This record gives sequence, structure tokens and C-alpha cells, in this order.
Amino acid sequence: MLGILNVEQTDRWGRFKEFAEQRIEPHAADADRTQTLAPEVLKGLAAAGYIGSSVPRRWGGGGMDAVCYGLLSHEIGRVCQSTRNLVAVEDMVCHAVVRAGSERQRDRWLGPVFSGEAVAAFAITEPEVGSDAAAVETTATSAAGGFVLSGHKKWISFGQIADVFLVLTRCEGALTAFLVERDAPGLAVRPIRDLLGLRGSMLAELVFDDVHVTADDMVGPPGAGLAFVGSPALGLGRYSTAWGAVGLAQSCLEASVGHAARRRQHGAPIAEHQLVRRMLADMVTDVSAARLLCHQAGVSVEKGDSGDLYRTLMAKYRSSTVARRAAEDAVQIHGALGVSGESPIERHYRDAKILEIIEGTTQIHQSIIGECVGTLYQVP
Amino acid sequence: MLGILNVEQTDRWGRFKEFAEQRIEPHAADADRTQTLAPEVLKGLAAAGYIGSSVPRRWGGGGMDAVCYGLLSHEIGRVCQSTRNLVAVEDMVCHAVVRAGSERQRDRWLGPVFSGEAVAAFAITEPEVGSDAAAVETTATSAAGGFVLSGHKKWISFGQIADVFLVLTRCEGALTAFLVERDAPGLAVRPIRDLLGLRGSMLAELVFDDVHVTADDMVGPPGAGLAFVGSPALGLGRYSTAWGAVGLAQSCLEASVGHAARRRQHGAPIAEHQLVRRMLADMVTDVSAARLLCHQAGVSVEKGDSGDLYRTLMAKYRSSTVARRAAEDAVQIHGALGVSGESPIERHYRDAKILEIIEGTTQIHQSIIGECVGTLYQVP
Amino acid sequence: MLGILNVEQTDRWGRFKEFAEQRIEPHAADADRTQTLAPEVLKGLAAAGYIGSSVPRRWGGGGMDAVCYGLLSHEIGRVCQSTRNLVAVEDMVCHAVVRAGSERQRDRWLGPVFSGEAVAAFAITEPEVGSDAAAVETTATSAAGGFVLSGHKKWISFGQIADVFLVLTRCEGALTAFLVERDAPGLAVRPIRDLLGLRGSMLAELVFDDVHVTADDMVGPPGAGLAFVGSPALGLGRYSTAWGAVGLAQSCLEASVGHAARRRQHGAPIAEHQLVRRMLADMVTDVSAARLLCHQAGVSVEKGDSGDLYRTLMAKYRSSTVARRAAEDAVQIHGALGVSGESPIERHYRDAKILEIIEGTTQIHQSIIGECVGTLYQVP
Amino acid sequence: MLGILNVEQTDRWGRFKEFAEQRIEPHAADADRTQTLAPEVLKGLAAAGYIGSSVPRRWGGGGMDAVCYGLLSHEIGRVCQSTRNLVAVEDMVCHAVVRAGSERQRDRWLGPVFSGEAVAAFAITEPEVGSDAAAVETTATSAAGGFVLSGHKKWISFGQIADVFLVLTRCEGALTAFLVERDAPGLAVRPIRDLLGLRGSMLAELVFDDVHVTADDMVGPPGAGLAFVGSPALGLGRYSTAWGAVGLAQSCLEASVGHAARRRQHGAPIAEHQLVRRMLADMVTDVSAARLLCHQAGVSVEKGDSGDLYRTLMAKYRSSTVARRAAEDAVQIHGALGVSGESPIERHYRDAKILEIIEGTTQIHQSIIGECVGTLYQVP
Repeated sequence: MLGILNVEQTDRWGRFKEFAEQRIEPHAADADRTQTLAPEVLKGLAAAGYIGSSVPRRWGGGGMDAVCYGLLSHEIGRVCQSTRNLVAVEDMVCHAVVRAGSERQRDRWLGPVFSGEAVAAFAITEPEVGSDAAAVETTATSAAGGFVLSGHKKWISFGQIADVFLVLTRCEGALTAFLVERDAPGLAVRPIRDLLGLRGSMLAELVFDDVHVTADDMVGPPGAGLAFVGSPALGLGRYSTAWGAVGLAQSCLEASVGHAARRRQHGAPIAEHQLVRRMLADMVTDVSAARLLCHQAGVSVEKGDSGDLYRTLMAKYRSSTVARRAAEDAVQIHGALGVSGESPIERHYRDAKILEIIEGTTQIHQSIIGECVGTLYQVP
Repeated sequence: MLGILNVEQTDRWGRFKEFAEQRIEPHAADADRTQTLAPEVLKGLAAAGYIGSSVPRRWGGGGMDAVCYGLLSHEIGRVCQSTRNLVAVEDMVCHAVVRAGSERQRDRWLGPVFSGEAVAAFAITEPEVGSDAAAVETTATSAAGGFVLSGHKKWISFGQIADVFLVLTRCEGALTAFLVERDAPGLAVRPIRDLLGLRGSMLAELVFDDVHVTADDMVGPPGAGLAFVGSPALGLGRYSTAWGAVGLAQSCLEASVGHAARRRQHGAPIAEHQLVRRMLADMVTDVSAARLLCHQAGVSVEKGDSGDLYRTLMAKYRSSTVARRAAEDAVQIHGALGVSGESPIERHYRDAKILEIIEGTTQIHQSIIGECVGTLYQVP
Repeated sequence: MLGILNVEQTDRWGRFKEFAEQRIEPHAADADRTQTLAPEVLKGLAAAGYIGSSVPRRWGGGGMDAVCYGLLSHEIGRVCQSTRNLVAVEDMVCHAVVRAGSERQRDRWLGPVFSGEAVAAFAITEPEVGSDAAAVETTATSAAGGFVLSGHKKWISFGQIADVFLVLTRCEGALTAFLVERDAPGLAVRPIRDLLGLRGSMLAELVFDDVHVTADDMVGPPGAGLAFVGSPALGLGRYSTAWGAVGLAQSCLEASVGHAARRRQHGAPIAEHQLVRRMLADMVTDVSAARLLCHQAGVSVEKGDSGDLYRTLMAKYRSSTVARRAAEDAVQIHGALGVSGESPIERHYRDAKILEIIEGTTQIHQSIIGECVGTLYQVP
Repeated sequence: MLGILNVEQTDRWGRFKEFAEQRIEPHAADADRTQTLAPEVLKGLAAAGYIGSSVPRRWGGGGMDAVCYGLLSHEIGRVCQSTRNLVAVEDMVCHAVVRAGSERQRDRWLGPVFSGEAVAAFAITEPEVGSDAAAVETTATSAAGGFVLSGHKKWISFGQIADVFLVLTRCEGALTAFLVERDAPGLAVRPIRDLLGLRGSMLAELVFDDVHVTADDMVGPPGAGLAFVGSPALGLGRYSTAWGAVGLAQSCLEASVGHAARRRQHGAPIAEHQLVRRMLADMVTDVSAARLLCHQAGVSVEKGDSGDLYRTLMAKYRSSTVARRAAEDAVQIHGALGVSGESPIERHYRDAKILEIIEGTTQIHQSIIGECVGTLYQVP
């Protein structure tokens, strides 16, 4: 990204890369294999200030600008998508608490999450609803001393280990968020295992069977669930996914360049085959382009201009597609090695596909971008 | 395939489908999960006459014509690629023994393999060589009483359970095949696990450390390894893979049609979304076309005309690509369900990618077809 | 198409090819350049029995079965899409007259059209309506002695030279067809020139300004316009386009194979480049597959089974896409020569794109196929 | 391009757009139709300082930085590729004269070209050689008083109207450039007409039949033809083409957004169709990404860093592909209107394909980028 990063961003990028390679990458294959994220990964992130890094300093966060946060997501995504997902989810919850939460809620949760002592999870998705926040069916009903939550959440990242859930409900018709602790009576947490990818993300299904919460647990006023909690969080998740996808694709590119130079057939490296060169050319071009789209989204997010949603959608749409294609081609270049656990490519191939589903599928992105283009897009 | 199958082929196709759904499908998810093919699968196949089904009756085989064998591979591939792979590998070895083997070898192995008492594996691929038979580096050196085999084979399907290996070697410079029993001193068999797909195929790595064989173990004369053993076997493997890929894509199509009709968003089935319709339209069109290419290959193989190699390459090339794309779109249509073990789509997605690697990668197919097209292809 | 054509079909295919190369191809470049189809082309077609060839013999037509008619469209499409279009349009009108017309109409028009003395055109499309027959806005209003036609038709193939138009109107709300002669008072015919492709198709815009017709000019009863005239005609047009697209793609393939063998770079033919081989491999595989889809549509049309619409849609969808891609790759293989008038590839490139628009766009095909797949499609 | 252009670049971009819309666009359709660029187009460009705009001020040029020059190429390419081509070719020749020419040559040609009084053309391409400068076969042989040129150049943009040609020859084995005036005895200029696109570029074939030149006509020393003349010129041409392709794609996007909003089917604008939205989403995302790749190339060119070749190749590769796809989708969205001369889309569709051929085909770009990626590419 020539001439478009400032000195601080460039420096930090280098440090993110070093951190990811030294502290995250050694655990990545295991996280996938065991379907568990090692505690030292979270500790390492917290110690480095990478949990809550995008939360403003006045709330105890890292105060990173949007581009820096993107570069962090890129580097962590380059080595482990589940860890990248953790970094996203924690910040999604913390931002919601900062934006809409009470002082009491901030005092209670921000510090422990930033320090890695507590894990927070974001509970929007439901079995019949997907990631369409507006269609949430879990209900919060007024009851003595507060509300009673009833419903079913699914595909909740880090649900297996979360200490607290930020839960989106329909409360008297209006989307409203609550913080619910893991040990709340009536809440059952069931692990979801054996997914195609992001297997270190420790997903869970949550069943709320008359779970009592108080008014103090409500995050923001009634009806603030979408505008102040759900939408900004999905926006952050989408932004993190976009950068992380580029990181994954970058890893596929680097591995493929290396393998193509080393692997010989008929006495010459396969890097001399035009069909291999074609795949490498597509990878490097598409990865570069997707990274620039992410950067544009970052500039837009940082400015807070009206195009940030739109630019983030474009970035996530293209970078997730690019990641999937790069992983596909990386498998072809690696041959049998690319489908075996001996190479990270096999894991990247599975993780990449997930990126086309989470935070809105490719098809949802196509629909929304295509709808917005006419009203939002100002040339160029 | 309207008007191009005869009555017998149509009848048998129905029976293959019934068999596959009743006897193979119930084991498919487990085979993937446990990385083991249940013994009753092999027994069921053998009992139904589906091991050696394409071997001529005079040798005790089933005598199926090429199109029927293709339809069998289609139906088994529709439910379980590892089982389809087993059906291919057993026939590959048996054909080689019939074609080039001695009477003693035929007596020794054909019966047990047909009955499922013995499992045979085909050992061509090597770590540095891929599926390029002509580049085999494992050596067979003349020694007292026969030959000494030395070398390394990798990615050998059903190597974990095979009783006998048909091994391609370089014997005094000429490609030569030997039958080697599993318990031969000096032969070490190491399981390969945790592959992206075909996880029930029980792959192994074989290390030949001065394994003694006799002249009686040689299959065909010295130098017959490629023309009489390797090439026809790869041809059969490629043909089976082509049909199996169409079966996998067909399964993705059927599951997607069903899911799109059932799954509702905003009060209507997602089958009403144009972007879903587009994916279904591509699936059904491409699956139909790929199946017709396989049929053409089958007619050509059955006739034994000079275009059979070429038509099989086209069929395998296109159907493996179609299978991968169908699986990708099926995941999108299924959403989170498509990446979870609750649906066979997740397994199909992983298996489909393997089909673009085995029996020659997509890139190798592109090169060879593009090279042949000028000399072989007669309009139309 | 190995083993799926009968002897008569194979023989006739050879004759169609010879005819097309000798009688049509020499005029093809000129038809494109001058935007006029030479009269001898029509005469040659009529003399050979290729106008009305698909009309049953009892009405004086050629009585070709659907597959033969497809092969004819393939060969003519291989050399000239405008001529292929003429062959389609004449048969579309004749079939409608046979199916729904009066004895008087059949006597008046079939003979002259079959002999090439008269040209008929099919007027469905309107400026605001596209090829959606059901949305036709041209009106036929009851008046003394018959009806008065008023409205606007556009993109009418061979409108510039047609002697008679089969016009779809809305007559008291019901879609109703009329035969209108060119010199009818109130009918203005305006040539449309300088289109991207099919430039020999002599398109016209028709303005009906109170054109009087009698009840004798009505084709079929009132309201029969869609089921008996429009839909079957579009079906035939779509079927012809599907086969013609394969013919165009076949021509691109043949030219590309020849050019890649002749053209040398750095001392070797470019056919040795993997990237060229890849394009040739895709062309030959996709052309073969698309041709088989057309054949299936033909078998279905000939049987008159319920899947004919569906199979024709799949054939047209895929073959038009394949034609466009083949033309794109043929241009790349030919380089500068491929974009100059020195090679037919330049014309093919322009014509191919039109095939993705006419008789329903690609997007309409995706929608309808994707919609039908769930209800119509019976495995396999 | 949020936050990555400086104020001057942003301002100039606006002026380029205004100029292009007011002064170039009105002539664009005619240039295509008549295959002639109107003299007032050249005059307008020269008067605005857009001929030689990238040449340093000390030589009388406009001194534009690389990004500004790219933006100019973008805006002119948005309305007329032939004019964009003229702007490129004139600067290619002028840069060569500045870089390698004598003072006499600079005095003779720079002023007249900048003012639009003279037109210069660049003659590298040969019938058997394509744009591979290193393989040039035209010879310059020492003779009394200088050299004799003999050979054949083809596809020379603006050859029909050029006053002077910068001709790449093989002079005693070494690639050497000469300036040859149009009226040099022995030089025949033959127009090439009826190309697929860039029809206002007035291409010509040049036949050199013993054309005498003097040592004063040599540009740079013998052997300087590739490094000082050919390669930098092709680099500039590639850079201009990259930006121009984005401009063309942008025009397709704008027209498609407008048409989709206006055109109604079944009572609603087609912009509400998901399949249309998908095409718009792809267009806007890909156009944005390609523009950012061009910007990166511009920064690199301006810095003169070692990655400029590589980044320009990526930009040209992707943007030409994006332009072709955008034009394809724009045709689909416009339907019949998209293939008629009533809309600029028809012209864009033809011009876009040319951009995948000139200054190195897509395949050459894939090969070179894929080759360089291993040695040149430094993450990220």
C-alpha cells in the first residue's frame, strides 16, 4: 500500500506481523485440530493490548485508528482466523457497552475483557434467522423485577467459553440488548463442533428458558438494539472479516510462491509453468486490490463519513471472495500437500469458505451493494 | 439422459441408486468422521457384485459395460466419495492383474478381492512425483531370487487396510509393476490422516526398505508398467472420478433445491430469490452437461475407440470443476447449515476439492486436453 | 456426439455442413459488412429445402425431426448467425400459421415462404416490453370490417425485407395474433442499423398507426396469441439459437486450433503455451457439453415430453454463454488478428454477445430455470 | 479514492472530467462510426495542454505527476478510448525524444506535437511479432549517408494521419530507433479499417521499402531502442490503458445504474431485481478496486521505485479484465438497447475487448506477473 499509510501505521503493521507470527501462528494448527483456542493466545493478545484495541482510550481501550485495527486483523487473519474472530468479537461487545451501556456495565465488563480475564460473546444469530438482526425472535418479556428472556441463539462465536453474552432480543416488539452472564439460571450453552472452518472459534448454541434479567442488564434504552448495538457490531465484524480475509489470501499467496519455487517437476520448478504463473498472478493482483478496498473502508470508517457502510460491504464482499479463490488456487499449486494437514493451506481452504457466510453471505452483500449503488454512490 | 440409455442401463441405474441410499449412505458421515470405512460397506459392495463389477465375466467379474459402471460410480459418489474410491481402486488393480498378470496372480487375488476378503491398493504416487507415473523413482533392483524394492510411495488410497499392493517401480530403467503383500519384510505402512476430504479412504504412506520380491510377483514383463498397468488404471480411476463428481454435484443440487424450498426468510422461501435461482440454474445445467460428457466418455471407452482417453479427460476435467462449484453454491444456499456437520454439504464441499487433485490436477487436464485438441479432435 | 445420432441424422449433418460452407459462408462477411443478406442466400436455402424444413410434410414443409433441425441450425450458425436467424424466423411464422392459422392463410403464405418468394417476420418485441410476450401493448381494436392495429414493434428481425408480419397484439385484453402485409396503409417500417451483431438480420422498427385488418387476418381465435403463437415460436427461436450458438463456438474452436498451430512466437507455435492450451481445453470441453445439452433438448422436443421447455432453456442458457466465452478466448488466441476484419473471429465476437440477449436474456434464463428446477426436475 | 489524492489532484480530476464531457464526448460516437478522429478533438486537447501533459516542463510539456496523468487518462477513457489512445501515443513518442533524442530532434518535433500541429506515431508492432519489442524484424542497414530501413509494421495507432513515425528497428543486430517522416520515399502507409474497437484510432500498416534515413534520425545510440525507447513507451502505454479501462468501466457502471433505475418491467424498475443488483455490485466493487490498483501504479511510477513495472502490469491486467466484464454486464442490463448504436454501451463493449489485447495481452500479463511475483514481490 504504497504512499497511503502514515509512518505510525506502517510501524505498527510490522509489529502486528511479528506478534502474529510469534504468538499466534504456533497455536493455529492446534486450535483447528482440537477445536479449542489455547488460553495463552487470549493472554498474549490481552497483554499486547490487542483486546479492545479499537476502543477509545478514555474507556481504557487501545485507541487504534480504523486502518491500524484493520492491519491488526490482517496480520492475525494471516495466521489464524479463529483468533482474528476473537479479536473482533471482544471489540464488538466492548464497543456496544461503551456506546450504549451504563456506567455500571462499563465498570463491570470492560476491564476484565481488556485484560483477558473475562470473555464476552455476541448473541444475535438465531436458527431460523441467520445474521438478519432485524428478524430476531428471542423475546424479553416484562416480569417482576425486570425481564424474562426466552428463545434460541445459534452459531455464537466463543459461546463455549464466554463469561457474558450480549443478547439481542425483541422486547415488547422493539429490538433490545441485554447482558446475560453465563451462569444465569435457565441459560443452557451447548457446544457446536465439527464445523468446516473457524474450528477454534468455539461456537455454541444458547437456549434461554425463562432467564431472568433486571433493567440494569439492559444495554441502552428499549429499542436501541439495532441502531446502537446490532448494526455497529455487525459493521465492525464485517470490517474485521474483510481485512482478515485479505490476510488469509496473503498467506496463501506467500505459501504458493514458496512452494512453486521449491517443487520441481521434470527438472524445473513448477513456478515456470504458465498455469501456475497465472494462478500466482491472479492471487497477487486480487490480494492487492482487496487490501486497497479494505484501506478505503478504513479511511471511511475513521472519518465517520456516510459511505462507511457501503465501503465496508464492498471490502468484505470482495476480500472474502478473493480469499476463497486464493485458497482454491493454493490447493491446486500445492497438490496433495495442499489437502493434507502438513500445510496450512488445508486449513485456509476451510476457513476461507466460512468468510463468505459470516457477517452476511456473499449473496446478501451483492443485494445490498447493488441496491445502494444507485443512491449512495457518488462518482468516483 | 433422455433417449441415450438402453433399458438395461436405466434399470440398473435405479438399482444402483437404491443400493447406495440403503447400504452406503448410512455409513458416509461416519466414514468421514472416523476416517475409517466400516467393514460392512465393503461386504455389502462385494455381496452385490460391485467389487470387480467392470471386470469381464470370464475372469469372474461382473462384466458391466462402461456406461453402467459409470452410473454405479455416479450413485455411489452421490452418497460417499470414499466408497466410490474403493470401488475404483479395487477394479483398477483387478484389471491390471487380468490384463498383465500371470494365471497364478489371477488365481491368488481376483477371487478374494471380488468377495471382499482381501483389499488391494494401487501404489503409483510418490512424494516428489505426484500422479506422473512416468517419473516413478522407487526402484526394483535385481538380486538373488528376484528383486529388491526400495523407495517411498505416498497418498495410497486404502493403504491402511490393503492386503496387497500393486507397486509401480523403475526396474533397470523400465517401469515395471509388482504385487507386494502387506506383511512383506521391509515394508512399512504409515497411515495418513486428517486430510481435507475423502477421509474414509484410509490413505497411507509406504516405505520400501529392501523389500524382496520374486519374478513371480512381477505383473507383466519388465517395462510393461506404464502401458499395461499404470496408464489403464489411471484411465479407469479418472473415469470413475468423473462420474463420481457428477454424483456429488447431483447430491448438492438435490439438497439445495430442498433447502431452498423449505428455508424461509421474510415470510417467503429463499427459492424465490433470484440469486438463489441463479445458483440452482447453474447447478442443474452444469450437472446435466457434465453427466452427458461422462456418458460420451463411457460410449467411447466401451467402443475402445481412439478418443476414449480424450473424452475421459474432458469428462473428468469438467465434472470435477462442476462438483466443486456446486458444493460452493450449495454451502451458500444452506448458509451456516452448509458449513456444519448437520448437513452432508459440509462433507461434499471438502470431498469435491479433492476431485480436482486426484487422477491428475485440473491444470494437468487443461494442458493435456489443450495439447490433444489439435491432433485428436475431429469435428464435431 | 458418439453413439447418440442415428444414421440419417449423421448423414444429414454432413450435408448441412457442406451446404453451409459452400453456400452461406462465402456471403457471411458481406452480410455483416453491408448489413444486408444477399438474395441468393435465401434462394439457396429455399432450393435446398431449408426454409420450412421443420414444418410437417403434410403442409409442404421438410418434416425434419427436431435433432436434425438442430444440426442444421448448428451448421448454419457456424458460418453466419444472421442466416441462422432467417431460418429460425421463417419456421417460427410458418409453424404458427400451420398451428393456428386458417386454410386460407396457409394457402396464401406457406408456399411462397417455403420457396423463398416471400419473407415473413415475427413481430412480438416492443420498445418497453422486450421479449416478454405477455406484456405486449400494441392494441387491436374492433372496428367496422375488422380491427384497427395501433402500436409500436421494435427489433424485428428481417423486418426490412418482410412481405408479411405475424403481429402479436392485445385485442380486447387478450393476446391475439394477426398477419399484416407490408404495404398495409398505416404501417411504417424503419430499418434499424449499426447493431453490435447479427448485422445481416435486417432489423426494423414497425409503427402501426391505425392499420386496418379483417377477421380473416387473425391467426387463431382471440386470446390464442400466447399459447398458440407466441410461446411456441419463442420456443423454436430459443432452440435454434441454442444450436446456433454451439455452431459459432465450434467455429471459434476450429479457427483457434488452426491459428495456435500456425502462429509462432520465439520459434515455437503458440499452441505449446499452457495458457493457450487452457483456452483450447475450455473451448472444446464446453462446446462438447453444450452440444450434448442441445441434443437432449432436441430429443425432448421430438418426444413432446413435458421437459422440453426446461431442457431448451438449459441448452440456450449454456450454449449462449459458451459461445460468448469461446469468442472471447478466440480473440485472445488470435491477438490483433482476432479484432480485425481479416478473421471471422471479430464477427463471431460481436454476434456471440447478441445470443445472450435474444429469445430471453441470460438473466431471464437463470430465473426461470432456477424457478422450475424445484418443481419440474426429476432426477436425473 | 478517499483520502489518498491531494488537493491538486482532486481539483484537476474535476477539470479533466468537465473537459472530457464537453470537448471529447460529443465526438466519440462519430469517431467510432466514421473511423476518423475529428481534427477539433486534437486541437482541443492541445489547447488544453493535454498533449505532452506528462512531459517535464523544462521540455515544454505539462509536467503532470503520474497520478494526475492517470486521472486524465481515466476521464478521457470514460468517454472515448480512441482519444485516450491519442493522448497516450503522443506522450509515448515525446518522452522517447526527450529521453534519448538529440537537441535537434527535440527542437524539430516536441513543439509541433504539443501544439497539435504535428501528429507522431509509434511503430513497434510487426505482423509476426505482436508487441514483443525484442523480436522486431524490421532492419536498418548501414548505407552511404546513413541507413536503409526495410520491413513491415502493423497496427500502428494514428498511422493514417501521423507526420512522423518513431520506428523500432534491428540495426546491425541491436534494437535501434529512428524518426522517419511520413513522406520519406519508400514508405507506404496503408489504412487498417473495420476493427472491432478503437475505431477512431486510425490504424495503419507501414511498409518500409529501402527508406533512407541519416544518422541524425537515429534516436539515442545504436542499441538503445529497447531500454530507452521501446520499454518506457510500452510502460506509459500500459499505464494509460490501465486508467482508461477503469474510465470505460466507470461509464458502463454509471449508464447501468441510470438505466436500471429508469427501465421498468412488470411495474417496477429492474434495479429491484437481484440479478441486476448483483451485476451492479460487481461493477462498482471491481471498478473501485481497479482504480485503486491504478493509483498504486501511479504512486510507484512517480517515485520511480523498482516496483513500477510490476504494479503497472497488475493495474493494466485487472482493469482491462474489469472493463470487459463491466461492458458485458452493462449490455445485459441494457438489453437490446445495449447492442444498438443508441447507447454508448455498444461501443464500450467493442472497445473494452481491445484493451485486453493492446500493450500486451491478458495472457502475457498473467505470465509476467506470475513470473515476477516470486522475485519482486515484497510483502505486502
